[in-house]
Amino acid sequence: MTMNQQQKPLVVALEQFQQQRPISFHVPGHKNGLLSTLPQAYRTALAYDVTELTTLDDLHYAEECIAEAQQLLQKTYKSDASFFLVNGSTVGNLAMIYATCTAGDVVLVQRNAHKSVFHALELVGVIPVLLAPCFDPYTKTAGHVEVETVERAIAQYPHAKALILTNPTYYGVVHAALQEIVNVAHKASIPVLVDEAHGAHLQANASFPKSSLQCGADIVVQSAHKTLSAMTMASFLHVRSDIIKSSQVAKYLRMLQSSSPSYMLLASLDDARHVVANYTDDDFAHMMQLRARFIEALQRTVDVITPADPLKLCVRVVGYSGFQLKEALEAQHVFIELADNEQVLLVLPLLTKDQHYPYDEAVEKIERAVNVLQQQTPQHTEAPMLDYTDEVTALDTYEEGQCTLATFSEAIGRKSAEYIVPYPPGIPLLVKGERITTKHIEAIERYVALQCSIQGEHRIEQQRLYIMEE
Amino acid sequence: MTMNQQQKPLVVALEQFQQQRPISFHVPGHKNGLLSTLPQAYRTALAYDVTELTTLDDLHYAEECIAEAQQLLQKTYKSDASFFLVNGSTVGNLAMIYATCTAGDVVLVQRNAHKSVFHALELVGVIPVLLAPCFDPYTKTAGHVEVETVERAIAQYPHAKALILTNPTYYGVVHAALQEIVNVAHKASIPVLVDEAHGAHLQANASFPKSSLQCGADIVVQSAHKTLSAMTMASFLHVRSDIIKSSQVAKYLRMLQSSSPSYMLLASLDDARHVVANYTDDDFAHMMQLRARFIEALQRTVDVITPADPLKLCVRVVGYSGFQLKEALEAQHVFIELADNEQVLLVLPLLTKDQHYPYDEAVEKIERAVNVLQQQTPQHTEAPMLDYTDEVTALDTYEEGQCTLATFSEAIGRKSAEYIVPYPPGIPLLVKGERITTKHIEAIERYVALQCSIQGEHRIEQQRLYIMEE
Ligand SMILES: Cc1ncc(COP(=O)(O)O)c(C=O)c1O
Ligand SMILES: Cc1ncc(COP(=O)(O)O)c(C=O)c1O
Repeated sequence: MTMNQQQKPLVVALEQFQQQRPISFHVPGHKNGLLSTLPQAYRTALAYDVTELTTLDDLHYAEECIAEAQQLLQKTYKSDASFFLVNGSTVGNLAMIYATCTAGDVVLVQRNAHKSVFHALELVGVIPVLLAPCFDPYTKTAGHVEVETVERAIAQYPHAKALILTNPTYYGVVHAALQEIVNVAHKASIPVLVDEAHGAHLQANASFPKSSLQCGADIVVQSAHKTLSAMTMASFLHVRSDIIKSSQVAKYLRMLQSSSPSYMLLASLDDARHVVANYTDDDFAHMMQLRARFIEALQRTVDVITPADPLKLCVRVVGYSGFQLKEALEAQHVFIELADNEQVLLVLPLLTKDQHYPYDEAVEKIERAVNVLQQQTPQHTEAPMLDYTDEVTALDTYEEGQCTLATFSEAIGRKSAEYIVPYPPGIPLLVKGERITTKHIEAIERYVALQCSIQGEHRIEQQRLYIMEE
Repeated sequence: MTMNQQQKPLVVALEQFQQQRPISFHVPGHKNGLLSTLPQAYRTALAYDVTELTTLDDLHYAEECIAEAQQLLQKTYKSDASFFLVNGSTVGNLAMIYATCTAGDVVLVQRNAHKSVFHALELVGVIPVLLAPCFDPYTKTAGHVEVETVERAIAQYPHAKALILTNPTYYGVVHAALQEIVNVAHKASIPVLVDEAHGAHLQANASFPKSSLQCGADIVVQSAHKTLSAMTMASFLHVRSDIIKSSQVAKYLRMLQSSSPSYMLLASLDDARHVVANYTDDDFAHMMQLRARFIEALQRTVDVITPADPLKLCVRVVGYSGFQLKEALEAQHVFIELADNEQVLLVLPLLTKDQHYPYDEAVEKIERAVNVLQQQTPQHTEAPMLDYTDEVTALDTYEEGQCTLATFSEAIGRKSAEYIVPYPPGIPLLVKGERITTKHIEAIERYVALQCSIQGEHRIEQQRLYIMEE
């Protein structure tokens, strides 16, 4: 194999396969799109929706074009081993935790982790010790974990099997001291697993915040579909570790992902890697210049917050909640990533120097939306953020015992039998097994008052929570 | 909601969303395909690769267009609850087993189950009792399980938590007595879980073999991508049970599938359901007529085996192995589903009456392939099939103990520490925890001699297997 980063081995293999005008007597049943009754633009692409045919390799035991594509990925991210994922960063988080822990183990986990991390811990039967994040006053969100919090947690739980962090957060807040945190964990022989779902692009240019791999993390999971150009559900997982074997991760990926992974998703990962590997300083400068102009134009009408990750922007209109702003923007066909009480969050495009974006049109539409908004009643209410006074909280094991429905006031002091997850951003307000405090209830009431969507089996509209019998 | 089967609520929601010409400040990073550098035909389709935006619902907590689409699915298959899956039947098998069993439970499982079933059992920590299938002399493959085998297994393991079957098999062999088997299991209050990966089309017409749901199975998983027109990784899961709650299945699907499920996959499931729901007797007659003509034409040059499922055909050329035939066909750009020693397996299209298929071109190319083949040395060797003398085999728990590498002869009498899975069809020759017999070793040697691909971490080329320390 003498591949270089200009190549796209998997994309090319698919194109060459098609050029044979193959007759299909195999799955998928749409037969290269021939039998699909989907809209034409969509149907045409199904010629790329193939399966493990001769010359097309096999993700689960890659040896040919998929192996080549993954090797280019591994070189781009400077890992020991890199994997294409087709079930999102969700499956990356699952596999990294399955590969590292077994039932009854203790792990240290940043409290503002994505629900997929908590799901993985629950499936494996791991006992989470929650590390409280700092409040980031700039984005008004839960942010990074302090080095001291990690040190204290390790002192209390020296035999923890892993430290699980999120970097950057959904809002683009990064761990400035990540390298130091990794050193602290490694000194205690604890591997660092990073959910970098929002940071697949960090490797593309040295002017982005440092990626977790660069800071020495052992396993890093990235949603290539979030900030790169891959298709939804297409993600990367990288291993570079003296502690965890990549073969263990591969084993669980084989168990947790479809035995028929989508070639369209896989090829889009090959393409996304190509963008990262070939991203130049000129590309970065162009992207940043258009972004700067966009921000400048926006600032005529709205407040703009620029977190450490330049692909994220928060936009605020004084007096109005993010939910109101979102609705006003959507009426102008401008769709943003998420809204919270304070603001809306935008994900900007990772442009290359030959690419443009309808920023001017967006500015016009945003201005129009804000004009309409300002004729409405402001609904922004200053509300205290949930702050985590306990730096380190160990959850009891979540035995699947009886659980009952309790009123909010009855629930205080009891253990939650469920996750309460406002969505987006999908960060649990209350973790299963966590003891419910007055602050939790206040935060839940506030979310309910804001008509924020809270996922789960709960009965929050009826002011009821499921609690564990003890 | 007043939906009817003519509608495609999710496909329509996607089209309407696009028609707004939305500006994207959200994920995915390709921004409606605008930034993708994939081939044009592919890129265009990315306008459909969207996310949980207003009007587009949320798979994990469906209430709008996805809920409507799933309700139409539920009506089509006459289930209590039906789910769209985006991680293949693999995740369906995982979720149905997670929802039904906990660690230490015993389950009865058809020995020729797909590896995803065994993976699920291992992840949950369930003890499998293997039920030997009959040998199907017509397709020369492992086929169905006899009612008596199930009865005997239940007598031995009355507290089994589930009976897990595969119907139809990869080769289109069905359980003729499925209804009776279900009755036997239900009498013992044991739920029946069916991996119907190859049978999503059975519901489309009464002349197909009966589907497992029609026979009373509790949970049924179907790869809509295999025989219907859905995209690869898109599957269905149906629940109709007095024993298992669909909310339990939903819970595990939420944990095991990406929190960003692909809308392209989901919409292709809405489209596939539409085909099944509207499939007429005329469609069936047309499909069968073209198929009959194809078979007739083929029979001039090859032997054709027609299993119970009419979408499957086995093709044989006397004296030649299926591997040889496959290679010859591929040289003519005819791609089949799989080859074994005896034959190649074809998956035929589920045509509607307005659809045609390049059958004539295929016949020409197949004839040409056979001509070329017949100038080669025949390599078909008559080899005894592995037959399962033990009708019911309980595996010991697979404690993750030490394992060592042993020669084939040393391995006899020891417990296998790995799965040995010839691929395709992905059915384990040797299950992890199973005691290795001379017959296993003979079968493995035969597969190796045939240069069949055997997946795994093993060292079979070096005549070594991993065994468990006891
Ligand atoms: C921080 C974080 N981790 C993990 C995930 C899950 O990733 P995916 O949706 O790619 O499965 C998300 C998705 O929103 C996320 O925000
Ligand atoms: C019998 C059987 N069950 C389950 C699966 C897994 O399904 P999927 O590939 O849709 O994940 C397969 C795939 O080949 C199969 O043949």
